Amino acid sequence: MQLSKQVLQEPMNKIYDTIVIGGGVGGLSAGIYLQRYLLNSLIIDKGKARSFWMQELHNYLGLPPDTQGRTLLKHGKDHYLSLGGDLLNRYVEEVIDTGSIFEVKVKIGRQNSTYKIFHTKYLIAASGIIDNLPFVDNMQNVYDYAGYNLHVCLICDGYEMADKRVGIFGRNERSLEVAFSLGWFTPYITLFTQDMFEISSQFRDRLWEHEYKLVEKPISKFLGANHQMTGVQMMDGSVIELDAGLVSMGSQFHSAYLSGLNLQTQGETLVTDQICRTSHPRIFAVGDLKLGLNQVVVAASDGAIAATGIWRDIRRERGVKRRPSNIDSSILAS
Amino acid sequence: MQLSKQVLQEPMNKIYDTIVIGGGVGGLSAGIYLQRYLLNSLIIDKGKARSFWMQELHNYLGLPPDTQGRTLLKHGKDHYLSLGGDLLNRYVEEVIDTGSIFEVKVKIGRQNSTYKIFHTKYLIAASGIIDNLPFVDNMQNVYDYAGYNLHVCLICDGYEMADKRVGIFGRNERSLEVAFSLGWFTPYITLFTQDMFEISSQFRDRLWEHEYKLVEKPISKFLGANHQMTGVQMMDGSVIELDAGLVSMGSQFHSAYLSGLNLQTQGETLVTDQICRTSHPRIFAVGDLKLGLNQVVVAASDGAIAATGIWRDIRRERGVKRRPSNIDSSILAS
Repeated sequence: MQLSKQVLQEPMNKIYDTIVIGGGVGGLSAGIYLQRYLLNSLIIDKGKARSFWMQELHNYLGLPPDTQGRTLLKHGKDHYLSLGGDLLNRYVEEVIDTGSIFEVKVKIGRQNSTYKIFHTKYLIAASGIIDNLPFVDNMQNVYDYAGYNLHVCLICDGYEMADKRVGIFGRNERSLEVAFSLGWFTPYITLFTQDMFEISSQFRDRLWEHEYKLVEKPISKFLGANHQMTGVQMMDGSVIELDAGLVSMGSQFHSAYLSGLNLQTQGETLVTDQICRTSHPRIFAVGDLKLGLNQVVVAASDGAIAATGIWRDIRRERGVKRRPSNIDSSILAS
Repeated sequence: MQLSKQVLQEPMNKIYDTIVIGGGVGGLSAGIYLQRYLLNSLIIDKGKARSFWMQELHNYLGLPPDTQGRTLLKHGKDHYLSLGGDLLNRYVEEVIDTGSIFEVKVKIGRQNSTYKIFHTKYLIAASGIIDNLPFVDNMQNVYDYAGYNLHVCLICDGYEMADKRVGIFGRNERSLEVAFSLGWFTPYITLFTQDMFEISSQFRDRLWEHEYKLVEKPISKFLGANHQMTGVQMMDGSVIELDAGLVSMGSQFHSAYLSGLNLQTQGETLVTDQICRTSHPRIFAVGDLKLGLNQVVVAASDGAIAATGIWRDIRRERGVKRRPSNIDSSILAS
């Protein structure tokens, strides 16, 4: 059930089989599988998963290509709750490993915050990443287009940009390398540094050879209407017309709560084995937090795989369900 | 487009970027991704994927739990065709590796069959498995319940069998081991050997200890109505009432066409790396043919991962799209 403010005031002695941190695609898929394995689970979600911002999923088998990410999330949440899973809309501050169980510390209230501890045997880290966006004076101007035709994922939306005039917004020279992959879809590419970093002469040569344009001036705002970006206006007033944008400015990893646990990482990404288990035997990671392809359907699959791994562990430990004993059989046995 | 009989009569010089063998969940997901990567692909499907028989998917994120497998397949097929992918309803007899391309030999006509060769650079084996079913005189009697409450997958349908009287139908003692996993969901288990194999005394002891029943007589037929199986009638006329069944009789692998290619396997299952690549660098495998969890959402994810791996290979080889040359620029360049 959806845990209310009321529940947070009450003493909480329950030990969950699994707490899932993050109610995005990976976390919800894990939750559905966990509940169907008759385990008791709690999803703690701070809201607004990465897929929440996606206006059209395009490539998730079984859903119409114009399905919004938030529609998928809504279906998944309803499905999870219908199976009796617990759901809490809060932010996880920290996870503490006490040996056989984890303490999950949840922040309550924005000001004068208090904390509530939830207990669990297993943990699934499903809190994902969020993309950095270009910084302009009025960020609403960016939000108006992000997830529409200002894309953040080449794998997802390269097809949408085919033969279009696309602007790439980077945060360093390396982040602009994506131009040579986007170049598979379109030759009409303009790279923007927003005057934040320098470009080497070798990189300039490569851009020239590919006929890609480079704009090194700061951006004033994105132009467009009805969530369709049509270009960029620079601080000096000049305008560059575009049909679409691709943001390549890195991501924030939502995994600060794991910092005390010394999990093995590669960069900021969690290293997992074939069943999404991290270097801690009772912590699993799914979706964009772990190494692999950052795709909705992969996160959903990860959730199924991690939940199954946890069920197998717990099943081996607890064994089978027994028939309820009754008086007759106990008399016979005595 | 859907390739017609007409097309099969015409000469076929095209070399596909990828031919996907199998139009189930894994193959369709791969096809959608391949087409969105602007590659040209052909799915060759013999029809009736494993998921075609599933009456309710239950655990696929984003679809209502009562969605039929065939509905998902229909959506996927329409989606793939809308992206310009080619689809052929035929049986693949053999794949021959000629060095840089594969010849895919397709059977045409049931009697006096002829063969047509399709060419491709990459291959995705997505033809899956099909479950062996209990054998009775009138197989329609089995088909009436299979995929309804005569289940073939504990991971998928354990939840549906919770606390119910479940019959397990095995093909050898080892296949009946699934009882001790099903025991997580229900203690009311009856195992059927159908008089096809012997049971060791050690195994009998374990069954006795768990209070599971063992029936070693041959089956005459399944009882029930409206696709709901209610029990089994034995050859001797006796009846055992059941609420559900679990078939554990192994599977047929649809991979005979790969037999000349010496791919690495573990048992009958194809060994693949993290991106679903087999031991052949241009052959990928997705879904139930490969090692891993046999789940619809995993197959869909595999398809995305394999298609992305192939795109990366081809992109590196072919490089970027160039601007169309026009007279002005060619004059300037001369």
